[in-house]
Amino acid sequence: MKTVPIVLFAAMFLLLFGCAPPAAGPAWERVPTEADLPTDRPLLAGFLIVDGVFNSELMAPYDILQHTVFHTGDRPAIEVCTISPDGELVTSFEGIRILPDYGFHNAPRLDILVVPSAEGSMDRDLENQELLQWVRKTGDGASYVMSLCDGAFVLAAAGQLDGRSCTTFPGDQDRFAETFPELNLRRDVSFVHDGKTMTSQGGAKSYDVAMYLVDHLYGEKVAAGVGGGLIIPWPPSPGSMPAVVVVPGAGG
Amino acid sequence: MKTVPIVLFAAMFLLLFGCAPPAAGPAWERVPTEADLPTDRPLLAGFLIVDGVFNSELMAPYDILQHTVFHTGDRPAIEVCTISPDGELVTSFEGIRILPDYGFHNAPRLDILVVPSAEGSMDRDLENQELLQWVRKTGDGASYVMSLCDGAFVLAAAGQLDGRSCTTFPGDQDRFAETFPELNLRRDVSFVHDGKTMTSQGGAKSYDVAMYLVDHLYGEKVAAGVGGGLIIPWPPSPGSMPAVVVVPGAGG
Repeated sequence: MKTVPIVLFAAMFLLLFGCAPPAAGPAWERVPTEADLPTDRPLLAGFLIVDGVFNSELMAPYDILQHTVFHTGDRPAIEVCTISPDGELVTSFEGIRILPDYGFHNAPRLDILVVPSAEGSMDRDLENQELLQWVRKTGDGASYVMSLCDGAFVLAAAGQLDGRSCTTFPGDQDRFAETFPELNLRRDVSFVHDGKTMTSQGGAKSYDVAMYLVDHLYGEKVAAGVGGGLIIPWPPSPGSMPAVVVVPGAGG
Repeated sequence: MKTVPIVLFAAMFLLLFGCAPPAAGPAWERVPTEADLPTDRPLLAGFLIVDGVFNSELMAPYDILQHTVFHTGDRPAIEVCTISPDGELVTSFEGIRILPDYGFHNAPRLDILVVPSAEGSMDRDLENQELLQWVRKTGDGASYVMSLCDGAFVLAAAGQLDGRSCTTFPGDQDRFAETFPELNLRRDVSFVHDGKTMTSQGGAKSYDVAMYLVDHLYGEKVAAGVGGGLIIPWPPSPGSMPAVVVVPGAGG
């Protein structure tokens, strides 16, 4: 294991030069794409939505992954869907009423499981054994598992972050550290990628981790295309998107 | 009229110093809050949603305005709602199915009209006279009118941008200039505020203009509170959020 010290690099640069470093390539080491991803069919990304789900943590990564369809050329893009426990209407934290595509009973097998934060991510949802069991089973079967904001609490409670470095919403990091003291919580980063898991601070930063995943899966050109449609410069200038990428099998 | 040359300032600073200037207060002049906003009831912001509406352009400003309820203290916050032409289910461009709160027939009077971009903003929606008529009437009655991305085409076609400076999605600015040559299109800015109208480039930049409106209405402290919940630093460091603010009645 090796942790890429992007945050330290950015901090040192700021100390030395008092401003952001000039743009020059991606701000992290590239991790090879998982070998088991299919190439002959679209990747399926499923977003778990429950009552109280936060709009931004759902929509930001949803848009990034969905927009790949316009940029991957001959390669299969990412298809997206929403899944609620019972398949019935969900009301977001901010009051948007969303009709999901599936319930737990008929959700398809996912390549990418995404868990946005919800109002109950730190309490009510953690007591919902049906929910945690579905996240555990679906996450185990997926190639990637992503959380935004306090969705990390749900992933952690479902055992998806065991042995991983991870992050969550800054204001809830102390609570996360108390609740899951065995996990390697990383602070002051937009997101953490460790193995098959990607965890994000959330909020408006929810775009970052999804852009990173697109770059990881399809390369910088496709990510830049997706970013162009959402006015997100790609690659980001070094220092602008602090992240921790744990490179598997790198020794150390 | 006076245009605050924020873009020029930022560009000059970058040329001179090769990096972003240090953080120091807001990046634009403050414009006094419109006198006719009520103080004894919540402000009502209505988001026009049609089939093909873009998620980010809806959700980013929706979240910013809705989250004011946690930060305005004794002052009335902003209430948000969605309005579709017939009040029936809308499917977003990315495939999210949204049940709106109102249709044109029963929508309440709005203080703030928000028009996110949709797949048909540059063609189909501009031929929909019922839609344009509703935007015209509702915008005329509102204290503020905001567009995100190509929502500016709809506002312009409904006469809401007459005599105003404005902006839209970068890739569609040439088309906007050809379609509405009499309007003062501004390029290379995140948003433009001119009188009662606020127009945004859209995409992930859709947060910027909504944060600005919250600051404009409630001040920097409330905006910083809203920003904290969505991990948007506020005030933004000068140069990070180029904008044009046309100050009414400032001579020149």
